[in-house]
Amino acid sequence: MIEAAADRFSAVGRITPLLSSPFLDEIAGRRVFVKAEVLQHTGSFKFRGAWSAISALAPETRAKGVLAFSSGNHAQGIARAAQLHGVPATIIMPKDAPALKIANTRALGAEVVLYDRKGGEDRNVIGERLRRERGLTLIKPFDEPQVIAGQGTCGLEIAAQATELGITQASVLTCCGGGGLTAGIALALEAKAPAMVVRPVEPEGFDDAARSLASGEIRRNTGPEAGFCDAILTPAPGEITFPIMQRLCGAGIVVSEAQTRKAMREAFLRLKIVLEPGGAVALAAALFHGDKLDHDAVIATASGGNVDAALFAQVLGEGA
Amino acid sequence: MIEAAADRFSAVGRITPLLSSPFLDEIAGRRVFVKAEVLQHTGSFKFRGAWSAISALAPETRAKGVLAFSSGNHAQGIARAAQLHGVPATIIMPKDAPALKIANTRALGAEVVLYDRKGGEDRNVIGERLRRERGLTLIKPFDEPQVIAGQGTCGLEIAAQATELGITQASVLTCCGGGGLTAGIALALEAKAPAMVVRPVEPEGFDDAARSLASGEIRRNTGPEAGFCDAILTPAPGEITFPIMQRLCGAGIVVSEAQTRKAMREAFLRLKIVLEPGGAVALAAALFHGDKLDHDAVIATASGGNVDAALFAQVLGEGA
Repeated sequence: MIEAAADRFSAVGRITPLLSSPFLDEIAGRRVFVKAEVLQHTGSFKFRGAWSAISALAPETRAKGVLAFSSGNHAQGIARAAQLHGVPATIIMPKDAPALKIANTRALGAEVVLYDRKGGEDRNVIGERLRRERGLTLIKPFDEPQVIAGQGTCGLEIAAQATELGITQASVLTCCGGGGLTAGIALALEAKAPAMVVRPVEPEGFDDAARSLASGEIRRNTGPEAGFCDAILTPAPGEITFPIMQRLCGAGIVVSEAQTRKAMREAFLRLKIVLEPGGAVALAAALFHGDKLDHDAVIATASGGNVDAALFAQVLGEGA
Repeated sequence: MIEAAADRFSAVGRITPLLSSPFLDEIAGRRVFVKAEVLQHTGSFKFRGAWSAISALAPETRAKGVLAFSSGNHAQGIARAAQLHGVPATIIMPKDAPALKIANTRALGAEVVLYDRKGGEDRNVIGERLRRERGLTLIKPFDEPQVIAGQGTCGLEIAAQATELGITQASVLTCCGGGGLTAGIALALEAKAPAMVVRPVEPEGFDDAARSLASGEIRRNTGPEAGFCDAILTPAPGEITFPIMQRLCGAGIVVSEAQTRKAMREAFLRLKIVLEPGGAVALAAALFHGDKLDHDAVIATASGGNVDAALFAQVLGEGA
C-alpha cells in the first residue's frame, strides 16, 4: 500500500531533502539528519496522507467531496489535495486553532466549519450531520490505512536518502500525535531499512504514545487539551496505529517546551527552515536526549512549519 | 567546466529543491518557483563556488591553504569547503559584518582576520601580506572561472527540475551582487534551457548590474557601501562576469527594501524557509515586479539565509 501511495504521489508530491549541519552534529554528539517535511506542499507531511486517501477514492465518491476534522495541518493537506483533484472539501476545526491555519485552509478552497471545543460542542455530531447531508467521505487524520500508507512514503524517502549517504543503522525520531506518521515510517523502514529503529517523540504532558508503548496498551492523556505543540496533542494513539507502533517502534521520548523552542531556533540558524512547535519535538530529542539513543546517526522528522509569525518571532528572541 | 564542477560537487553538495505555493502564484499572477539555495550547505549558494574552486586546486597547492575576502556567505562557503578538504582557510572580513556570519565562519574552522572598512583599512594590503607569508591561494568571490562554474551547477539543477515540471520557458531571477551566480546560471541555461532568460535583481541604490547592462559597460555604485541587503552590495559587476551577463541576460530589475522585507515574510509563511535580505530580492521581483517579466513562469533564486535572529524577528513583526 505504501508503494502504491508513492506511485500516486510521485506526480505531485515533493521528495523533501535530508538536511544536516556540523553545528547540530556538535550539539548532539552524533550525526544528525533532518527530514524537512516543512518543505512538503502545505508545509507539513500531512499532504502525503491526504493525497494518498483522496487519490485512492473511487472517482464518483471523490466527486461528492471529502470531510475532515483537524486543528490545522491535516486540514490544509486535505484542502490542497481536494483542490488539486477539483473536488470540494469541508473541514471542521476548533475555533481556537492558530489563525494562520484557519486562514490557509480557507484560502486553499475548503469550507471551514468552526466549533467551540472549550464550550463543549461535539465535533462528531456536527461532522456526522454534514457527512449525511452532503454525501461526503470522512478522511480521518491518522487512524485510516490509506493515510498511514501516504505518510509511509516519507519513510521510503528516508530509506533511500540514508542509503545514498551510506547509513543503514539509525534512530529515526518522529514527531508523534496520533501515530500516523510514526506508523507509516515504521512500516516503510521495516521493509526498506530494517536496521533503523523508529522512536516516537512527544511533548511533556502529552506522552500518550510513550506511556502506551511502555505499558503495552493504549493510554490516554489526562491533562489539558491545548498546549504549545498544537499539531500533535492527540488524546491517544489510534487503534490501527498503536499495534503497528507496538510491533515496530522503540521506546517513546518526551521533550520539554524549552527544548522544543531551542530546536526551533537551531533549525532557523543552522538549517534555514521554519519549524512549528509540534514539528520541532523530534529535533529537540535528537539534540538534547542523546543519552536515550542507541545509534551514531539520528534522523529526525521536521514534520510541520505552520507557525504564526508572532510566536516564531518570540521564540527567536529568546536566543539573544 | 560547469559539468566538471557538478561532477566534483555531487559527492558532497545538495540538490536544492524547487519550491512553490499557490499563495505566491496568486500574488505574482503567474507560476512562481523558488530555487531554495538557503538549504545548500552553509546556508547559501556560495558553497557551490567554494567547493568548485578548492576541489579544482592541485593537492599540494590546496594543502597550503586558501584565502578569501568576504562579508559573509563566501566566507562560510570557503571555510566549510576547506574544512571538508582538511586544509586551512584564512578569511578577511569587515568588522561590521553580521555577527552570525563571523561566528559561523570561525566555528567552521577558519581563521578570521577582521578589518575596519569604515576606518579606511585596505583589505587588499592585509590579504596580500597574508597570501605571501603563508603561501595561500586567493579564492575570489565571483570573478574567478572555477567559482562561476560552481555557481553554474545551480543552473544545471534549475534546468533539470524545470524540465521535469514541463517548463522550458521562464524568467529566471537571480539575486545579483558581483554576478557569479548570475553568470554561472546563465551559462548553464544557455546550454540546457536556452528558452529561459536570466534577469539579475538588485536592491535600490546598488543597481550596478542593471545600469551596466543598460549602458553596455561596467558602472559602479556611487552611494553608501553598507545597506540592508549586505550579501549582495558589491561595488560593480566583475570583469569576467559582466561580459557573460551582457551576452546572456535580460535587463536588471531593482526592488525596494519594503518589497524585500515582504518577500522574506512570504517565504517564511508560504515556503517555510529563512531568507536573508540579499537572498530575498529575486523573490521580491517575482512577486512585485510582474509587469517587467515576459513569461508565465518565473524561477527565483533564494540565494542565502544567513540572517541574524533579531532582524528576522523584526521583519516578521511587520506583517502583523
